Amino acid sequence: MSEPTSQSRAASGDPGAPPKRPDAGHDTGDLPLSELSEHGHAALAWIERYLAEPERHPVLSRAAPGDTGRALPSGPPAHAEPLERILADFERSIVPGITHWNHPGFLAYFATTGSVPGIIGELLASALNVNAMLWRTSPAVTELELLVTDWLRQMLGLDDGWFGFLNDTASVSTLLALAAAREARPELAIRERGMAGRTDLPRLRVYCSTHAHSSVDKAAIALGLGHENVVHIEADERFALRADSLAEAMAADSDRGALPLAVVATAGTTSTTSVDPIAAIAPVARRHGAWLHVDAAYAGVAAVLPELRARFTGWEQADSIVVNPHKWMFTPIGASALFVRRPDILRRAFSLVPEYLTTTDPQDVPNLMDYGIQLGRPFRALKMWMVIRAFGTEGIARRIRHHLHLARRFADLVEGSPDWQLAAPVPFSTICFRFAPAGVDDESLDRRNAAILERVNAGGEAFLSHTRLHGRYVLRVAIGNLRTEWEHLERTWELLGKASVESIGISEG
Amino acid sequence: MSEPTSQSRAASGDPGAPPKRPDAGHDTGDLPLSELSEHGHAALAWIERYLAEPERHPVLSRAAPGDTGRALPSGPPAHAEPLERILADFERSIVPGITHWNHPGFLAYFATTGSVPGIIGELLASALNVNAMLWRTSPAVTELELLVTDWLRQMLGLDDGWFGFLNDTASVSTLLALAAAREARPELAIRERGMAGRTDLPRLRVYCSTHAHSSVDKAAIALGLGHENVVHIEADERFALRADSLAEAMAADSDRGALPLAVVATAGTTSTTSVDPIAAIAPVARRHGAWLHVDAAYAGVAAVLPELRARFTGWEQADSIVVNPHKWMFTPIGASALFVRRPDILRRAFSLVPEYLTTTDPQDVPNLMDYGIQLGRPFRALKMWMVIRAFGTEGIARRIRHHLHLARRFADLVEGSPDWQLAAPVPFSTICFRFAPAGVDDESLDRRNAAILERVNAGGEAFLSHTRLHGRYVLRVAIGNLRTEWEHLERTWELLGKASVESIGISEG
Repeated sequence: MSEPTSQSRAASGDPGAPPKRPDAGHDTGDLPLSELSEHGHAALAWIERYLAEPERHPVLSRAAPGDTGRALPSGPPAHAEPLERILADFERSIVPGITHWNHPGFLAYFATTGSVPGIIGELLASALNVNAMLWRTSPAVTELELLVTDWLRQMLGLDDGWFGFLNDTASVSTLLALAAAREARPELAIRERGMAGRTDLPRLRVYCSTHAHSSVDKAAIALGLGHENVVHIEADERFALRADSLAEAMAADSDRGALPLAVVATAGTTSTTSVDPIAAIAPVARRHGAWLHVDAAYAGVAAVLPELRARFTGWEQADSIVVNPHKWMFTPIGASALFVRRPDILRRAFSLVPEYLTTTDPQDVPNLMDYGIQLGRPFRALKMWMVIRAFGTEGIARRIRHHLHLARRFADLVEGSPDWQLAAPVPFSTICFRFAPAGVDDESLDRRNAAILERVNAGGEAFLSHTRLHGRYVLRVAIGNLRTEWEHLERTWELLGKASVESIGISEG
Repeated sequence: MSEPTSQSRAASGDPGAPPKRPDAGHDTGDLPLSELSEHGHAALAWIERYLAEPERHPVLSRAAPGDTGRALPSGPPAHAEPLERILADFERSIVPGITHWNHPGFLAYFATTGSVPGIIGELLASALNVNAMLWRTSPAVTELELLVTDWLRQMLGLDDGWFGFLNDTASVSTLLALAAAREARPELAIRERGMAGRTDLPRLRVYCSTHAHSSVDKAAIALGLGHENVVHIEADERFALRADSLAEAMAADSDRGALPLAVVATAGTTSTTSVDPIAAIAPVARRHGAWLHVDAAYAGVAAVLPELRARFTGWEQADSIVVNPHKWMFTPIGASALFVRRPDILRRAFSLVPEYLTTTDPQDVPNLMDYGIQLGRPFRALKMWMVIRAFGTEGIARRIRHHLHLARRFADLVEGSPDWQLAAPVPFSTICFRFAPAGVDDESLDRRNAAILERVNAGGEAFLSHTRLHGRYVLRVAIGNLRTEWEHLERTWELLGKASVESIGISEG
């Protein structure tokens, strides 16, 4: 950036192009801009120190319910308070109630980590503070969004027949995909007529595996398809959807007069990161004219590695794919890429242009509000564009490869220990495992593993989550945090060992 | 914040508590943290200069379609690029494609302006980068969200029987409200059974005025209620929903066997900011057992002013209310408050807890993922908390009052001019008006007003939008930008006058 910092400008006494109204905004109730620098610098220094050593904080907050609420006034202040005091309260009352997704010991769920270019991108975006609902309300925002999702498409090795844009979450991306599936059946006229009070509609069915993410169920509920019409197809011993069972279920539904509307295949399920056999699923979906959506929200980014791309085979036949750069691509939260083959269908599902939003812009200019529910569209692409450029595709690939390597090493530790067992294959960077010394019954082991989890999480050095596989409680280490290194996993393993010994009392409980 | 800036620390040579690993992150592919300071300072300096004089830029971007896309490489870089170069490209290639919502001449749609505390709040939030899907994944984030929406509730003069939380947009807030309306009829069993393929469901109808926001229609489409089941009730001469017509329409539907599901009353419609008579609507809705949602996304914040609170009379009888702090409360985009009377219904509509998201936290701890569609929940409350504290409620009230005063003055200019006419009352800070010299037919006037709009917007000093009222094209000045002062409106009036003269040729076209 060409401007010097305000300090260096002040220090050098350089009068060149100083702001004409340095205190513009003062009479608006906003703070003078000099405070933006002053407190912005303090905030940056705090962030720098924070990110240099996130381990200073316990990864899982130790706050008790109500702690934060009680530490702050229950009503708003009538008079302006100095920013200094607000920031001091942030440190004192908010930070202790933060669970540190930045901590290298964050191994729960799927990590979302930001990065330096991502933070600076968000800083600039929050200052521009645009709403790119229409192309004209910030052409660069719409165009950068289309460009950067196209960069991602290229990184993933997908052909150029995809239209991609960004949503806030995969939950929304998947909901839009299923809405498009509904709209892909224009003969049902659901957009116009809805579904209630009609006798001409069949039951509409959505298929996914028992390991699909809950967002599929939520989307079906929201769209009015009904939870019972989400058919959870059994998984095989590797936790992948069984294409033969899918084919049977779809045929049976079809025979009964129900309409197979959509299939959601997952590449990287939440519990075990298992991969559904998309290439086998695609022809089944096609046979029934069902929309094929691929949920690759977490694992999709791994297709950046040429050596992993084969795992995603078949996704090129999908109608839609969701991949979240804010998960495993070091982009701050709020960047879920939805790719669709036929944007016209999505547009047909959602476009609605009241007079006050009509423009005289060329017809072919994309107004991204037409492709989803939310009219408000922040500048999501900036951070992602900055991350891709600052890391380079090789830098991103290198880090993902490193995470895969760490996961393999951790899995080796588990496999090498007689008292522990892997509970699932490790296709990416998530390990499901269980403390399972010989001669202890399954129920006791469930209790002991739950106790181990609680104990490790309470320690503040690592935060793991759990799941159930074949009805059994298993621990889960998901590596995706930018800063996680072998030392953190080694330490986690040590803590698990210690907690497993301490859990002996539990098994008798 | 207690930490000194890195410069001052370096300058003083103070070794006290320097980051132990100043370059932590370097081997992760991320930039060294020293670059966070360096480029963060440059970004802050750029923002400071930008916000001191947003008028240096044309308010409506002059970019032609494709300009931004063409200025940037069509594929991602393989190798890391220096942040300096990325930021230079930001200035050169992105900024010219920005429509400046920060420009005091931004008078289109409804403004969203950030502010100094809001920007610093977003900076800190992007560094913490948490996902507060569960209480435990950042207790302070959930608790601050509940606290700060409760502050807002108090500011608006609502009683304490409301549960409030934040969504990204009013579009989502309204969709959740209508989903709750559906769930408030448990006998329909829509969550579980859906709506298609059933013969036991009546048509479900949603009512709003012809001036309601398109997000009501979009929500009904998404929820599978059907666009034709959104009943747009006629408005009176002040563009407010006619409660008598609503009562008739609901009774007629009910007689025909349809079920009146929900009524959406708007306090501050998009075209004219008219206010529906909520107090008259509430008993009509209640008579039919319909959910009453109040869309006060834009104007709701005006209830901060005691002297305006009477305009909202009746909203205390609603089942849900949406108010957007990111519109008229100087909070960066991504803060829409949804208040509901009965959070249990919303929770029943959306709660879905798979094993991998179960916790051992106390039952009464709120997990906000249970109240909506999106699992991913960023730290939206921080910026809003900082804005309320840094402005104080009196500071916010003062600015809103000022905007109302500016609107009144602008309306006076219009009314005082024989060639112009007000097209609607001005209940808040938005003026609808039209160039209407005597003796010109309506079609010609439509064309001339459209030409005036284009000309003013092309000038770069002001950006207005338009709407249609009684079928006629009218101009719209919406005052909500933090920095808008009388001088900007005076200049806009001058530009309108000039453009109206220049539009004479058009009327013959």
